[in-house]
Amino acid sequence: MRGAMLQTLEWTGTSLRLLDQTRLPAETVYVDLTDERQVWDAIKRLVVRGAPAIGVTAAYGAYMGIKDAPGNAQDVVLRLDQVCDYLASARPTAVNLFWALDRVKRAVRLPPGTPGGGWGEGSGDDVKQKVLAEAIAIHEQDQDFCGRMGEHALQLLLKLEHRDPIHLLTHCNAGALATSGIGSALSPIYVGCQRGLKFRVWADETRPLLQGSRITAYELSQCGGNVEVTVQCDNMAASLMSQGQIDAILVGADRIAANGDTANKIGTHGLAIIAKHFGVPLFVLAPSSTIDLSITEGSKIPIEHRDAREVTHPHGIQSAPAGVGVYNPAFDVTPYELITEIVTENGVWTPRP
Amino acid sequence: MRGAMLQTLEWTGTSLRLLDQTRLPAETVYVDLTDERQVWDAIKRLVVRGAPAIGVTAAYGAYMGIKDAPGNAQDVVLRLDQVCDYLASARPTAVNLFWALDRVKRAVRLPPGTPGGGWGEGSGDDVKQKVLAEAIAIHEQDQDFCGRMGEHALQLLLKLEHRDPIHLLTHCNAGALATSGIGSALSPIYVGCQRGLKFRVWADETRPLLQGSRITAYELSQCGGNVEVTVQCDNMAASLMSQGQIDAILVGADRIAANGDTANKIGTHGLAIIAKHFGVPLFVLAPSSTIDLSITEGSKIPIEHRDAREVTHPHGIQSAPAGVGVYNPAFDVTPYELITEIVTENGVWTPRP
Repeated sequence: MRGAMLQTLEWTGTSLRLLDQTRLPAETVYVDLTDERQVWDAIKRLVVRGAPAIGVTAAYGAYMGIKDAPGNAQDVVLRLDQVCDYLASARPTAVNLFWALDRVKRAVRLPPGTPGGGWGEGSGDDVKQKVLAEAIAIHEQDQDFCGRMGEHALQLLLKLEHRDPIHLLTHCNAGALATSGIGSALSPIYVGCQRGLKFRVWADETRPLLQGSRITAYELSQCGGNVEVTVQCDNMAASLMSQGQIDAILVGADRIAANGDTANKIGTHGLAIIAKHFGVPLFVLAPSSTIDLSITEGSKIPIEHRDAREVTHPHGIQSAPAGVGVYNPAFDVTPYELITEIVTENGVWTPRP
Repeated sequence: MRGAMLQTLEWTGTSLRLLDQTRLPAETVYVDLTDERQVWDAIKRLVVRGAPAIGVTAAYGAYMGIKDAPGNAQDVVLRLDQVCDYLASARPTAVNLFWALDRVKRAVRLPPGTPGGGWGEGSGDDVKQKVLAEAIAIHEQDQDFCGRMGEHALQLLLKLEHRDPIHLLTHCNAGALATSGIGSALSPIYVGCQRGLKFRVWADETRPLLQGSRITAYELSQCGGNVEVTVQCDNMAASLMSQGQIDAILVGADRIAANGDTANKIGTHGLAIIAKHFGVPLFVLAPSSTIDLSITEGSKIPIEHRDAREVTHPHGIQSAPAGVGVYNPAFDVTPYELITEIVTENGVWTPRP
């Protein structure tokens, strides 16, 4: 379904091969990671990004962090706890990171109260194999869920008043390169293309790191004739909507609170306000692992603030006076009332009132 | 009043000296222009930018285009017409360009019906001196009007509920470097600083050409301790407003239609929608020469579209796949209903119903 798409990540049996997304679109470079420190660094530096892809990467990272650990099952489980805590510190907002690490930890623990105090059964090697199997399961499930999200969201798009080609706008990259499958926000485009539908997609470039122009435009420009892609600066989306150019907006999510408030790439909140103003529907697409029921509302989602140089030195070249203050949050939170629907692998998700 | 500010433009008596704003903030380079072709190029390439500064520059450019013209008054006036048509083709949206060129043309023509068919009186040299005098008058008036705008707008700001320092957000650069005086949008900051008021200013970086981070942050960082300036990407303004950080938004204008609809730097329309959503007042500051009563509404204002490479190759480095479509309008139009007040040198301007 991904066709000639680049591979976001691949488990080789001994290492995790990642496409280095910091170097797109100019260079196609793969890096092989063999230990948890390299995985932490790859997540931190956005070599791999996108909440679902981060989750899969972290799960393999947990395995690589314990694969050479000595000792019995209990020793390996203790080491796994440390590795997971370490990996969880790479980035704070995308909940899929913590969700995936929790899954691998749960996979090797007996239910509480079981004789043995809840430690893993069998030998240290048994624990390692269970962790690897869980990472592979997370990986395969991610691919499956992308296809299911795409199916559900495509049906919603086709019910809207829309043109042919369908005119869509997206922000950042929640595509194939943000997952191990066909993406979250962009998944209905891939599913639709398979059925011969055509799309015209406007990609917000998404400052400061330009994931929209570097990554979304790149992956969609490889889709062949069914997708026409145009890049614009983030501040041009209102101009497009004011001219009635956009049938719908598709975005991903990094964490969704229990009330539906959605943390996603910085700029999503403003885009949602503008979309509401012009009556353009905005869909959030994310696997259910992005929903964090432990957080009651969006204001409680921790927001990562990143290095000032991302803003002041685009491509390493100074564009602001030395010493100026910088505001550089990586995410914002869109209140649920500005979102038309949240779509997961199970279809439309509605928060409990 | 500009203190240690850089000089946007200076008439040397024989040439127009411009600060090359394409090279800020890394380099402070002045260029001396001596003919109309250099002036056209400087306006086109944004060596000088900002509607009021473009107007003053064009007026001097008109003089430089005729100063060596041979012949009598009629010959020089005919040449002036050609030069003005040529300079008017540099950029289409900012009406101050056409306004300034019309002023120098009117300055050398007798009223219609006057014996001589409306051609300039006196010798060719008389015509040239009148054009130069009119350019100087436009220049001096621009400086005066900036101060008056600043005074009016400061009074409006002080009537708002605001903090100390006053928390402002601005987009693009409508400051001292967009005029020959203390700016349009930023003028109340300069006036306020003179009175000991303090300001905290958030400057949208303003993609694609980053006039906010390169120019606004630069000029405000030279104001001393009364102004604290922070830069953010354009898509972060909603995040700031959602946290209640902004007391008011100040922007300039490139052309205002008779109904109050305002063409300004791309992104202003979206910012105004977001400001309305959060109840943040948004003021447009511009000299009355920016009001184009010949245009009934904003949809009729011609919008300049600029080179795709401004979006795809920031600082010359490829950030989007080769051959991708690009949408790069330099301006958008904010409907009057989203604007709190339009402030000119004469105070608040209200369109006729």
